[in-house]
Amino acid sequence: MIASGTLFGVGVGPGDPELVTVKASRVLAQTQLVAYFGKRGKVSNALATAQRYLRPDAELLPLIYPYTVEISPFDPRYIEALHAFYGESAQRIARELEQGRDVAVLCEGDPLFYGSYMYLHDRLAQTERCVVIPGITSFAGCAASAGLPLVSIDRVFSIIPGTLPEEVLEARLRSADAAAILKLGRHFPKVRRVLERLGRLEGATYFERGTTDQEVVMPLKDKTDDKALYFALILVPNHDGGPYRERHGVPA
Amino acid sequence: MIASGTLFGVGVGPGDPELVTVKASRVLAQTQLVAYFGKRGKVSNALATAQRYLRPDAELLPLIYPYTVEISPFDPRYIEALHAFYGESAQRIARELEQGRDVAVLCEGDPLFYGSYMYLHDRLAQTERCVVIPGITSFAGCAASAGLPLVSIDRVFSIIPGTLPEEVLEARLRSADAAAILKLGRHFPKVRRVLERLGRLEGATYFERGTTDQEVVMPLKDKTDDKALYFALILVPNHDGGPYRERHGVPA
Repeated sequence: MIASGTLFGVGVGPGDPELVTVKASRVLAQTQLVAYFGKRGKVSNALATAQRYLRPDAELLPLIYPYTVEISPFDPRYIEALHAFYGESAQRIARELEQGRDVAVLCEGDPLFYGSYMYLHDRLAQTERCVVIPGITSFAGCAASAGLPLVSIDRVFSIIPGTLPEEVLEARLRSADAAAILKLGRHFPKVRRVLERLGRLEGATYFERGTTDQEVVMPLKDKTDDKALYFALILVPNHDGGPYRERHGVPA
Repeated sequence: MIASGTLFGVGVGPGDPELVTVKASRVLAQTQLVAYFGKRGKVSNALATAQRYLRPDAELLPLIYPYTVEISPFDPRYIEALHAFYGESAQRIARELEQGRDVAVLCEGDPLFYGSYMYLHDRLAQTERCVVIPGITSFAGCAASAGLPLVSIDRVFSIIPGTLPEEVLEARLRSADAAAILKLGRHFPKVRRVLERLGRLEGATYFERGTTDQEVVMPLKDKTDDKALYFALILVPNHDGGPYRERHGVPA
């Protein structure tokens, strides 16, 4: 009987290949079979980021979503198709593991933070050896790239999907001192409207493809059109030099 | 006239030296002068994590906090001393930069996310070249280490300091689907009480020194004593396999 392989959920970070961790680069150098989630006909961002760390003899296993944004995630067809897709993907990987092969699944950002890897982990972690390698999240990558302090001291930082209904989005933003708003796409005008209503447009920053060489960064108030990428994000920081300045009037 | 050096804010991640990024390791291999924040008489966690990446001829510049937890952060003596300390630290670094030397400041986790580096950046970014290298945050490191899916789909994830007053902590937790609660220490019993009151003790996980070889991980409900490290953290996840399971009753 062959010892089973290990499933590695490999966070590759926000896009800059140098923001891959030493651990991720080591695991990719040791693992021949490399899976990744992707959209049919599109280059995978995770694959592009990790490319330089793959073995010359790497074998790629693309896991292609049946739908991404073509139909609503609340449509029963979407639900059924995605459910079947994650089940089949987990089975494909399980077959490799059972033959003693390790499998690395490339994940943009961090595998356990809004990532599809979780749906494989849900199905496999009870029976297979799974090792997760964390990755730099998009919001941390964008903040660093722009040199934008995010949050300090006793403030609350929330990561808020832009897909939420307008009133929920507003309530969640009211209860966050600082925030990253993810998953913009067609939700962008709604998000901007809510930030404007809350008086938080000023100081917010809009990012596309943060940390890559196609990065777009601009003050949100200067972005007047309604078009945004799904993976664009907005940072609403709250750092003012700390309590010894804000609360006690000590000059900077 | 000599060209000024560059200040690098280097995130070294949560503790496992392999969770340093390729970029951070490259910058540390190129930078002789390495600063770090620390407490007198204590080994710096950031330094311990980064040690293997430093040059053999590295020159260390420890920046020692005048106080950490000895007096309240609202005490005027604390405020005044910390303010002076950050100002002097920035000046020491500025003098090196002006002599054309690069300086790397080691930061646990991510430099712009509850990190002291921000107070240097506040004082230097207008006049000096500053490059920030993001790091794996403690919550992502802990989640990966325990294989604990954190948050998915359209849920909100909040990072909440345990130092907040009890009623604020409760309100912020109510408005988060999933959370990481940081800065525990003497605030731990209060945090546990709030989670219990909200019915969220079950499923929460307590971590100390996550990702290091001294890591402690346990279900929060099994931690019955009142002692916690300041840098301990609690994860309150919210991932249940996705909306196609929860909202539509599709079996796993």
